[in-house]
Amino acid sequence: MARSDWKRPTTFPLSPGHRRIRLLLSYDGSGFSGWQRQKTERSVQEEIEKALFKMIGEHVRVQGSGRTDARVHALGQVAHFDIVNQRVPAEAFAIALNQRLPHEVRIIESSQVTDQFHARFTSICREYRYFVKEYAHYTPFDRGRVCRVKRFPPIDLLNAYAAYIVGTHDFTTFAAAADQSESKVRDIYASHFSFEESQWGGRLLMYTVQGNAFLMHQVRSMVGTMLQLGEDLEPPEEFGRRLEARDRFRAGKTAPPDGLFLYRIDYDDPQ
Amino acid sequence: MARSDWKRPTTFPLSPGHRRIRLLLSYDGSGFSGWQRQKTERSVQEEIEKALFKMIGEHVRVQGSGRTDARVHALGQVAHFDIVNQRVPAEAFAIALNQRLPHEVRIIESSQVTDQFHARFTSICREYRYFVKEYAHYTPFDRGRVCRVKRFPPIDLLNAYAAYIVGTHDFTTFAAAADQSESKVRDIYASHFSFEESQWGGRLLMYTVQGNAFLMHQVRSMVGTMLQLGEDLEPPEEFGRRLEARDRFRAGKTAPPDGLFLYRIDYDDPQ
Repeated sequence: MARSDWKRPTTFPLSPGHRRIRLLLSYDGSGFSGWQRQKTERSVQEEIEKALFKMIGEHVRVQGSGRTDARVHALGQVAHFDIVNQRVPAEAFAIALNQRLPHEVRIIESSQVTDQFHARFTSICREYRYFVKEYAHYTPFDRGRVCRVKRFPPIDLLNAYAAYIVGTHDFTTFAAAADQSESKVRDIYASHFSFEESQWGGRLLMYTVQGNAFLMHQVRSMVGTMLQLGEDLEPPEEFGRRLEARDRFRAGKTAPPDGLFLYRIDYDDPQ
Repeated sequence: MARSDWKRPTTFPLSPGHRRIRLLLSYDGSGFSGWQRQKTERSVQEEIEKALFKMIGEHVRVQGSGRTDARVHALGQVAHFDIVNQRVPAEAFAIALNQRLPHEVRIIESSQVTDQFHARFTSICREYRYFVKEYAHYTPFDRGRVCRVKRFPPIDLLNAYAAYIVGTHDFTTFAAAADQSESKVRDIYASHFSFEESQWGGRLLMYTVQGNAFLMHQVRSMVGTMLQLGEDLEPPEEFGRRLEARDRFRAGKTAPPDGLFLYRIDYDDPQ
C-alpha cells in the first residue's frame, strides 16, 4: 500500500537576523472555535498572536502543528514563529506569553530552533488521547473533558477493533465530509484502549492513537464507531469491514470533541 | 487525652407521613461562597434548596454533613432533607435534581434513610484530599483544583510530619481565628502523602486525611505548614513542636482552598 503523501518538503531558510522560536503548549479548548484563526470566533492561534503583539509590539504569524476542532483540548500542541531583531531570550517567551494569555492557554516551554524545524511539516508522529467515563462516576470536574457513556463496552472487544486501525490504511470511512485531503491514506503506529484511575474517582477509559497525521474528525469518528459497535457487542471483523469499505456512511456517530486531547507531537530531529 | 466532644446525641423522630432522603453529591466549589447558605453569595446548599423547590414546589431545608469553605470542592459530600406527602421515589431525586441544578453540582445518588440518620451528627469519619502539582506540570485543566508549588518537598519528610497528626490531639495551632468550637480536640485516623499520575500529565502529590471532624481551615493550615516546613527541610520534630504548642501563630501559611476536596463521609450505620 502506498505511503501517505501529506508531508511536503518545504522549509524555508531564515533571513539574517531572524530567529525561529518553538512553543510547547496546552489549552482547554472549551471556549475556543479551535486552534485555527477564524474571522469572528475565538481561536487559540489568535490568542497567542495577540499575546505576542502585546509582548513585542509586532504582528507575528504563529504556525501550529495542525488544527484542532472547536472544544478539542491540547496537552502537547507544538507551534513556531519567526522573530527579527528581538533580544528576548527564547526561554523567556514562555513566561512572558503566559502573563498575557487567557488562563485557558498555557505555554509549557519555549526554545530556539533552526530553520530545519517546522511545526507542521517536520512532525513525524502525532498522539491523541480520548477519555471516556461511565455516567455513574461522572463529576463536575469531568465536564467538557470526558465523553460520557452509560456503560463501558468490554475493553478486550474495543482493543480488537482498535487493532484494525494500526498500519497504513485508507481512512475514507472516518473522514469528515469537509475533509479536503487528496489522499485519505494515513500511517497509524499505535491504537489501543486502557483503563486509568480518575483523580475524581471511578475508572477512566482512555483511547490512545499515534499516527503520522489524521484526517478531519478521524479520531472522533473512529472512537464513536468503536464505542457504538462495542455497545452492540459486534464482532471485531465488523469494524474491519467498515474500515475497508472506504465509505463515510459506514462510520458510527462521531464522538463529541470534549474527550479529545492532542497529547504529543514528535519531530524527526529533537530540537 | 480526652476524646473530642463535637458529636451531639440528637436525632429527632420523623413525624408520620415524612420521609428522610439522603444525598451523595459532588461539586466544583470555584463559583461558590461555600456549602453554607449566605445572604448575598451563591452557596451549594441554596442551589440544592432552589432545585428542590423547582421540583416539588416546597421550601425544604437541606442539612449537610458540614460546611466547606469558599472554593473548596467535594467529591463525596453527604446531605439529607425531610419531605412530607411526596410520591417521588427516593432514587428519582438524583435525576430530577440534576436536571435543575447548575452544572457545577451533581447528585451522585439519592436514597431513603431512617430518622436514625443525620448527615451531620451521625457521621463517624470524614476524609479530605488535597492536590499539589509542580509549576512545570501545571495545565489549564488543573486550574482551581490543584495547589501549585515550585518543587515538591521530599515525600518522606512530608510523611514524617503527617504522622504527627494521627491520633487524638488539640489542634488549636491549625484552627482559624474564627473557629468557634469549644474544644479544639479532634481524632485523626489517617494522614499521609502519596504520588499519583495526573490525567493531564506529570505527578500529582496527594495528601489524604481522615478524622471524626475538622476545625475551621484545619486541613488547609496543616497542609500549608507541612509544605512550608518541607520546603525549608525542617526536621520532623519541628512539626511536632508546632502542633504541641497549641498556638495559632506557630502555623504556616494556610494553603489555598483550590486543592481541597471533601472526599468521603462514613456513617455508623450504612443506610
